[in-house]
Order: sequence, then structure tokens, then C-alpha cells
Amino acid sequence: MCGGRDLGGRFPKEGGAARGPLCEALRVSEYRRDRTTGEWVLVAPERKRRPHVRFSGHASTGDGRALDPECPFCPGNENMLTDILLESPLDGSLGWRTRVVANKYPMVSSGASKAPAFEGAPDRIAGGGYHEVIIETARHNADLSALAVEEVEDVIRTYLRRYADLMKRPNVKAVIVFRNHGRRAGASLGHPHSQIVATGMVPPRLSASAAWARRHYENHRQCVVCEEVQRELESGLRVVEETDNFLIVVPFAAAGPFEQRIYPRRHQACFSELAELEIRELAGALKRALQHLNAVLDDPPYNFVIESGTADSAGSRYRHWDIRIVPAIQHLGGFELGAGLPVNSSCPEDDAEELRSVRF
Amino acid sequence: MCGGRDLGGRFPKEGGAARGPLCEALRVSEYRRDRTTGEWVLVAPERKRRPHVRFSGHASTGDGRALDPECPFCPGNENMLTDILLESPLDGSLGWRTRVVANKYPMVSSGASKAPAFEGAPDRIAGGGYHEVIIETARHNADLSALAVEEVEDVIRTYLRRYADLMKRPNVKAVIVFRNHGRRAGASLGHPHSQIVATGMVPPRLSASAAWARRHYENHRQCVVCEEVQRELESGLRVVEETDNFLIVVPFAAAGPFEQRIYPRRHQACFSELAELEIRELAGALKRALQHLNAVLDDPPYNFVIESGTADSAGSRYRHWDIRIVPAIQHLGGFELGAGLPVNSSCPEDDAEELRSVRF
Repeated sequence: MCGGRDLGGRFPKEGGAARGPLCEALRVSEYRRDRTTGEWVLVAPERKRRPHVRFSGHASTGDGRALDPECPFCPGNENMLTDILLESPLDGSLGWRTRVVANKYPMVSSGASKAPAFEGAPDRIAGGGYHEVIIETARHNADLSALAVEEVEDVIRTYLRRYADLMKRPNVKAVIVFRNHGRRAGASLGHPHSQIVATGMVPPRLSASAAWARRHYENHRQCVVCEEVQRELESGLRVVEETDNFLIVVPFAAAGPFEQRIYPRRHQACFSELAELEIRELAGALKRALQHLNAVLDDPPYNFVIESGTADSAGSRYRHWDIRIVPAIQHLGGFELGAGLPVNSSCPEDDAEELRSVRF
Repeated sequence: MCGGRDLGGRFPKEGGAARGPLCEALRVSEYRRDRTTGEWVLVAPERKRRPHVRFSGHASTGDGRALDPECPFCPGNENMLTDILLESPLDGSLGWRTRVVANKYPMVSSGASKAPAFEGAPDRIAGGGYHEVIIETARHNADLSALAVEEVEDVIRTYLRRYADLMKRPNVKAVIVFRNHGRRAGASLGHPHSQIVATGMVPPRLSASAAWARRHYENHRQCVVCEEVQRELESGLRVVEETDNFLIVVPFAAAGPFEQRIYPRRHQACFSELAELEIRELAGALKRALQHLNAVLDDPPYNFVIESGTADSAGSRYRHWDIRIVPAIQHLGGFELGAGLPVNSSCPEDDAEELRSVRF
């Protein structure tokens, strides 16, 4: 339940503009609209009191062995892989730290499609593209949040390299980097890995949020995410952590409990615009965001996705990339399915306070 | 994998218009757009070959007892309920068959809001409305698909009564009837029940699909669902069953494996327009759709939702209600989250064939 905690002197700042203070209002339900995407959610704190509603943890599937003879991502099992596309470090003198391979069971069919539509069928488009796996470490039983910051930095550098390479291929319209942790979050293998998918079509959510951001820019001559970052810094209510160049918040319209977003504080349209000097700092922020989540929810299954621009948005004044981290701890029901409206049983302001209170 | 089955002489009808026959194409991925809602999905049959991807069944939580002393929905435990709103039959001489109670942990806060927006905050709307539970039978260990057709008919009559009552209340904009079966589908109690939520806001998915259908009507002077029903009947590829007044199909752009929709064959904008003589027939169709699902997936968790109009759509020439049944057997991953694009690892035409082959 909301409202039971002391939110400190910062509270009235945002609450004052509305009918009542935020957490007061959240003894009851409210719809909230994400200012950066236009997406609505229903925040329903009374749902949290249901019996049998417990957040489940222990998503890590590592069985303690550093090397699993049956895992295709472990060193020595290269015969189980289709293609090794990249290894880092490139010289490989001391073995690889990250490795990129083709996904054996791709969502999109390899090779960007040259014939994007079926003749005479406007409701079918060939699903061409690229689907790769980024193996984050050679150690089977490691976990991204427990890697050294330098190792997380390696992973982000690998994301950047594959992102840039895929984005410039012909017919590629969007590139999505994501990570599924735990079976309930969609991971079918326990060895630490992320994925990257390049599509020949701009996915619906990307085109909708691009349109939303463009409209905002046309009306206000300002990037909607830059504005939101500023607003969150001023209010402080949902801030989990700020560093020189990044801001971690629980978003105002979080779709579920303990969702976090990592925003670059200065304007950056596209993930590939990340500056060399910021990579280490982002690695630290990502690692800590995951550590906070693990501390609060006891190693929950989660997804994260780098929400970045599309092929034509580099340098855009209205797009602004982020990393969205979502614990996979809510079961979707028929209401969400029919209404297209996520129901968040947790109060974003409370969740932020809990996450930022974690001390190591 | 698609393509391994004989789809009979009906196949070329639809395949001929496109570049290749449907199942041939579905050895690889394709995007499909739902013609009735405008929503895209990615059909990715290669995903099905992943190891460890098995559809899980046994969602029924009934423990064999007809009466559970700790279940608030069982007769005799009325002290655990907040409010009994309706019982059927009304005279109750032989006990109730269905019972409607207020949801103790509502998504929306009771009473439709009189103040729909927070002053000065366009991104917050008070979440007022009504959230009720429809207890489908007094027997704790029963299951909707195993009830007699007359009992399912009682359940549908109860839906209709509550739907009509809630829809006419002031400030109610939409009413959503849904059922969550099994914990993974969001059910927190095992006793057979459905839910009904009345909202003071038109949920995003309803307004988007209404806009889509209206545009189609303006361009073609025909209801888009009537057109789709006709097309499915002609092609036959995705038909699971047809009765005099209803059609069960796996939709062309199913969001996941073994999704089914039940459409009224003649034009009906709103669920409340269901004719008296059709109720029994719908009960039979719903029961069989669930039985087919249980036979193929071994009692999977599932959601169903009655996708109907909003308060202002009764009598509309372009809206057309349906029941959408979705097994909760896929884990959403970071791609779906970021792209807003469901990934269906199954071929809708194959799924339809499997469902319609079930014999009892």
C-alpha cells in the first residue's frame, strides 16, 4: 500500500499541482500516462493486498558449475553453435570475454528481406532480419549483475559494435538489444547472454513513441525525454540514482512493480551516440540498477531492453534512448489483454524509495 | 514447424493471392496484421524448435474437494465476502448457481469517478469504476469447460445482466468481462470465477480498434469483422468450428499459439445485443472451444475476454464483438516489451487444424 512512508520534504512539489499528494491519491487507483511515450497504465495499489500475491525470486538458473558440457554457450562446445560472428577481445590471446553468435532459433529469418511485402497482401510482410546472441562471459554460472564493472563495460561495447553494424545494413529499419533473465522472463538457457534483433520493419511501439515524441517537439521545441529527465531531477520522488551522465528512475507511469529506466541526462537520440567516456559509467549504473532489483526482489526474473531510435533517427532532436528494466513478476490477465492497459499493483514513488534505500 | 501437414483442397484459395502458399512461407517468419484491429504480430515458426520450450498444462487448481472451508467463493463462507450483488436463480429455492460479488481487491476504485481528471495534470486520471467477481458455480472443484451447457448458459446470462447494469451507470465508459484460468494466467483463487470491470475511461486498445473499424467502415461501407468472418468461412483454413450463429477461428494474426476467437456471424456491435435464442448456442461454442484447448494443450492456463463495444457503441454499424481466448503459455521477453510486437512461435493455420481435429 502507498501512503505509509515518509517521502520527505520533496513531496509537496509535485503533489501540489494535482488534486492531492501523489501517495494520498494512490490509496485508490489512477490511470497514468507516460509522458515520454504516450502510453497509459492503471496503477492499482489495492491489488497488492491480494492473498497469494508474492513476488517470486531466484531466477538465476546457474547450477554452480563454471562450465556446463551441454551448454552451447560454454567454451569448448563450439560445435553446437551455428556461427561465431564476433569475439572480444579481438586478439583472443587470453580467451574471449564476450562472444556473438547467430541465434539458432531466430525470430526473424536470416538476411534482411529484399521483398518486404507479399504481393496483393498488405497484411503480410516477410519477417527478414538478423537475430544474434551476445554471450556475456565464458563463465556459465556468472550473472551480469555480479560481473566486474569492466566486464559489463565489455558487454556494452559489444552491444554498441553489433548495433552499429546491423543498423547500417540494407533494409534494416530498427535494432533492438534486450536481455531475458530467468525462465519466466523468456530465457531458455541459463548461461548469461543478451540478444539483438534487427528488423526490416519499424515495430509498432517504436513508430508510436516516435510519433508521440515528434509531436511534442513540434509543439514545444524540446525533446520530451530531456524535459522528463529535468522534471524527475527536480521532483526527486522517483529517482533511484543519479550519476554525472545518467539518471535511474522508476518511471511515473511504470507498467509494473519496480520498473526502472536509465536515461542519458544530456540529449542523445540513439544508443550509438553514447560517448566513449560514458561507457564505463553506464556499465556501473546498469550493474547497480540490477543489484538494487536483486536486493529488493531476491533475484527476480527480468527483462531489459535498450529503447533506441530507428535507422533514420540518428541525430534526431526529438528521440532520446534509454534502458528499460522490467521485473517479470506480474501475471498478465484477461483485463490487460482486452484493455491493452498494464495494471501496476505497486506505487512507483514507493518502489523508487525502496530501490534507492538499498545499501551494499 | 509449418508445412508438414496436408491442408486439403481449400489451401490455394488464400495462398494463391500471396507470393507463396501460407505454410510454405511460414517455414520462415512473417509479420501479420490483424484485419479487424490493425494490430501487428510476428509469426516465427522457427522459435518452436527451441529446446526446453514446452507448453505447460495442468492449470486447474481444484484439489478435488467440492467445498473448501477456506475459499471465500464457497457456500457457507459468506462472511469472507464484502458484498453479494446478485444471485441466480433469483428465488434461490434450491441454492444459487451463479453469484456476483464485489472484488475485494479492485483494479478500479469503487464508484465511478465524478472527477475524471486531476486538475492541472493531464497525465493522471482517477481510476474510478466497478470491479466484480462472477462465481460460476457453487462447486469449488468444478471447471467452466466441464459444466453442463445449461450451467455455462447461466454464466453467460449473468455476464449479460451485469454488463447491461454496469454499462448504463453514469460515467462508465467501457465494461470488460474476462476470465483468468490458472495461476500463470493471473488467477489467484482456484474456485471457478470470471470478472467484470467497468471503467470511467475508454481503455487504449478499445479506442484504437474502434478507430480502426470506423475508418474501414468509412472507406468500404462494411463492418470489418463481418468481412473477416466471411473471408474465414470462404477460406476455411483457420476455422475451428462453425455453428448457425457463431464462428470459431484461430485468427490470421494470432498473438500466440492456439489463440481462438468466437465471432457472432451476423452483425452485432455489442455483447448486450446477443439474442435470447443464441445464448445456449454460444454457451455450447464456448464450452467446446475450451474443451478443444484442453485436449490439445492438456489443461493450459488461459485468459478469455469479451471484446465488446464501449458505452457509446451499441447499435454501431462498424463495431462487432467477439470472445478472445488466449492460452497463457508463452513467456514475454524483452523483444516483445520493447517492440510492442507479440511473437507467435506457432503457425495459426496448423493450430486451427489441430484444434478442429479434436474428437470427443
